Amino acid sequence: MIIDNLKTPYYAVVFSTILTDNVEGYEAIANKMELLAKKQPGYLGVESARNSIGVTVSYWSSLEAITAWKNNVEHIEARELGRSKWYKKYRLRICKVEREYGFEN
Amino acid sequence: MIIDNLKTPYYAVVFSTILTDNVEGYEAIANKMELLAKKQPGYLGVESARNSIGVTVSYWSSLEAITAWKNNVEHIEARELGRSKWYKKYRLRICKVEREYGFEN
Repeated sequence: MIIDNLKTPYYAVVFSTILTDNVEGYEAIANKMELLAKKQPGYLGVESARNSIGVTVSYWSSLEAITAWKNNVEHIEARELGRSKWYKKYRLRICKVEREYGFEN
Repeated sequence: MIIDNLKTPYYAVVFSTILTDNVEGYEAIANKMELLAKKQPGYLGVESARNSIGVTVSYWSSLEAITAWKNNVEHIEARELGRSKWYKKYRLRICKVEREYGFEN
């Protein structure tokens, strides 16, 4: 899904990942984290795709909302599991969305 | 590929797309644009994935570099072709990358 009802300025977290060969359990926890993220204050939406790498961009109303989600206990547990089992590599970027454009046909 | 050698602050362009059913010619032009982008001043890298949607994040040293790429003549032509044939919907977000973290196992 593409998110198209947001007003700048807001924040984007770009989470780019390469998975290991052992992805048992990954999808269940990823889906659980997506549902949990949706319940957090300041969560605005997510856009995600994966083929050789995964690129997931979540949108948030403020840096405080991002920090609160980072410190969520279930999220911390999932992240530790991810580092020990599923992620070969990742980068996480915290960005301020300054402008946006759209097109729909 | 995941880009991991960048120093904040820099800029990210998050380009999220849904394609039409008519993607003939799309991949060739998309690849050509990726090669052309790499030659632009201020281009720092790209991360991209597609399944039900496409999420492509390109990284740039400045807003001026992003504007120059937006105004590149071949890029304008490709964008017009994209709007007329390949894109059902897109959002393009211009973001300032403020912080980043990484993990590698």
